[in-house]
Amino acid sequence: MSTNSPQGFLFSACAAGIKASGKPDLALALVPDGASAAALFTRNQIVAAPVTVGREHLRRGQGLMRALIVNAGNANCATGKQGLKAATSVCTGLARQIKASAHQVFPSSTGIIGVQLPVEKIHKALPALVSAAADGDAAFDQFANAILTTDTHKKIASQSIVYNQTEIRLAGVAKGAGMIHPNMATMLVYLFTDLAASPRELHRCVKEAVDQSFNNISIDGDTSTNDTALLLASGKSGVQFQFVSSAFQAALTKVCRALAAQIVADGEGVQHVVRLNIEQARSRSEARQIAGSIANSPLVKTAWAGADPNWGRILAAIGYSGVKISPERINIYLGEQQICRHGAACPFDAEKAHAYMSEPVYEIRVALGAGSASLEFLSCDLTAEYVRINADYST
Amino acid sequence: MSTNSPQGFLFSACAAGIKASGKPDLALALVPDGASAAALFTRNQIVAAPVTVGREHLRRGQGLMRALIVNAGNANCATGKQGLKAATSVCTGLARQIKASAHQVFPSSTGIIGVQLPVEKIHKALPALVSAAADGDAAFDQFANAILTTDTHKKIASQSIVYNQTEIRLAGVAKGAGMIHPNMATMLVYLFTDLAASPRELHRCVKEAVDQSFNNISIDGDTSTNDTALLLASGKSGVQFQFVSSAFQAALTKVCRALAAQIVADGEGVQHVVRLNIEQARSRSEARQIAGSIANSPLVKTAWAGADPNWGRILAAIGYSGVKISPERINIYLGEQQICRHGAACPFDAEKAHAYMSEPVYEIRVALGAGSASLEFLSCDLTAEYVRINADYST
Repeated sequence: MSTNSPQGFLFSACAAGIKASGKPDLALALVPDGASAAALFTRNQIVAAPVTVGREHLRRGQGLMRALIVNAGNANCATGKQGLKAATSVCTGLARQIKASAHQVFPSSTGIIGVQLPVEKIHKALPALVSAAADGDAAFDQFANAILTTDTHKKIASQSIVYNQTEIRLAGVAKGAGMIHPNMATMLVYLFTDLAASPRELHRCVKEAVDQSFNNISIDGDTSTNDTALLLASGKSGVQFQFVSSAFQAALTKVCRALAAQIVADGEGVQHVVRLNIEQARSRSEARQIAGSIANSPLVKTAWAGADPNWGRILAAIGYSGVKISPERINIYLGEQQICRHGAACPFDAEKAHAYMSEPVYEIRVALGAGSASLEFLSCDLTAEYVRINADYST
Repeated sequence: MSTNSPQGFLFSACAAGIKASGKPDLALALVPDGASAAALFTRNQIVAAPVTVGREHLRRGQGLMRALIVNAGNANCATGKQGLKAATSVCTGLARQIKASAHQVFPSSTGIIGVQLPVEKIHKALPALVSAAADGDAAFDQFANAILTTDTHKKIASQSIVYNQTEIRLAGVAKGAGMIHPNMATMLVYLFTDLAASPRELHRCVKEAVDQSFNNISIDGDTSTNDTALLLASGKSGVQFQFVSSAFQAALTKVCRALAAQIVADGEGVQHVVRLNIEQARSRSEARQIAGSIANSPLVKTAWAGADPNWGRILAAIGYSGVKISPERINIYLGEQQICRHGAACPFDAEKAHAYMSEPVYEIRVALGAGSASLEFLSCDLTAEYVRINADYST
């Protein structure tokens, strides 16, 4: 028995031959006694087949799930009716082996768009995958590893809370890298807990946690077609949601923030993670709009790649964000140093600024002088390596 | 006397020492007998000092101008009150020499943000600049050359129309490269004609021409703080606007479209220009919104850099554009070949597609199946060279 994994879940993974590289590409989570489930999906109007099927299965099963099956290497998106059939067929095949209904299986896919899912390879891999499913950290690690695409390492975070001497465990895994942008799950995220909670309670919690984490990061401003954040609760701790609701919410948000930070740090070609603190905004949503405008500006992001304290580009990006601003009230800080005062140049130590921006993680603070709302947004630089990775992806 | 330059204008240029490279960086256009003027400016809320001063001079002079002075190498933006004083001082200095009012001088600046304009260098250069002003193509070429920053070559286009055996000339110059995005002049553009027209007539014409040209291009999605499109009409042809209004509008739009195409082709690090044709949209503005979403997607643009027919990324960008779409109605074509049918994969010759995308200019056509509006939008790839140029700009 593991010391960290939530109770009631079994994990396994294998290489089904979907990735050309031969790396693990099929991941399974089983909940033998079932789990409550809630999910958030991409806001892109183009959605992958597993998103359509997963949403439908949640509805038909009234939020009760027995299994989660994820493949990497193929997004099963823009694959038409055949793609929908493929996603359903994977669920049916797995359901048959674990003696569940097809709508108790939640499917996910990530990878290239527009190529039909190699369903036969998945079907062939299922029996061994099911029989290998185990509890414990090693199996959980394998699951985390098999859902990756261009990620360079797996992303895991966990928390536990205690109620009346009973431990409630929460563990999450994520997959990110490119196509990361706010306003949705923005990537694949799976959260597992042994708390006892209803789908409705879980939905409220995951929505709040995502809003405090994945909605405040951006790598390239692209919004994927497959993004999903799924929360499964097995109930095996025996503790009911109502007794720990705020502690659980806090733990869930912490896990999501930790995963979000790992995703940005592992963004394609990323050399620097920038903690963008927007302060003195009129509202949190205006702060987010400004942060997004800065974080998605190619001119800002390339300046970051060059460790160049070019605050003028940041100011310009604030100016076209669409949020009403007073330029003469804006102050910009790079760590401890102020680099823009009242919307204009101010003297600063450029060498020190350049050295600070050469760190792998650093902070830029923008004070708008408009109100009292604030937001931390995680972003990163745009490097020649990002271009290389994405110019070569499908060919 | 030149055979192409509009009558009534004199041009000159010099190296005033604003650019560290020592290249020409100060350009002058004189209109000894005055010209009607109209201008469009950036929609960025952060505007450079010359934009504020230029707008004010147009207002105070009721659209009558005697001179245009442009410097490259310094944007005079985010320079506070000192920057406004600097822009005004340049106008006053020039006005004194040509015996005009300060508000009959239109100022423009382009270059780095947040550094004070070296006014003394400009004042020192003015006398020689004024005395060197000449008509003819050579002087016009020098003007076009001195307004450039990271552009690799000058951008000029001209047209002429004939009315009752009288020729009316129109010539334009532009400066582009980075920070090019729709919804404004998007760069520096100066248009000169010897037609006789009122500022109001000119304003209507330049607005329409910009909407048909510069508002339909994008290099990096960034919106500059200095963008200006200025149209000056000397009246020296003796022909009144009312007799040639539609022919003039057509010629002006043609000149603007030619300049816009030159700007995209000379975008920073650009290896491929993509003519993005959005068809069957509900409206022209929806078509533009979708085109912008595709043209600003780093994932799409890097695929273009790799000559990769990755239509899935195009489809995903359409999906998050914010325009309501029906995925199953969308067809995408790469030149003659269809690469996406009804929002899903369709067989195509990948080798032929790759070869087609290796051309310097090619076409992608998106048919939305939603209406009858269409739009041609010019964009380009995002290359490692773009990153290199912009990571190094201010350091």
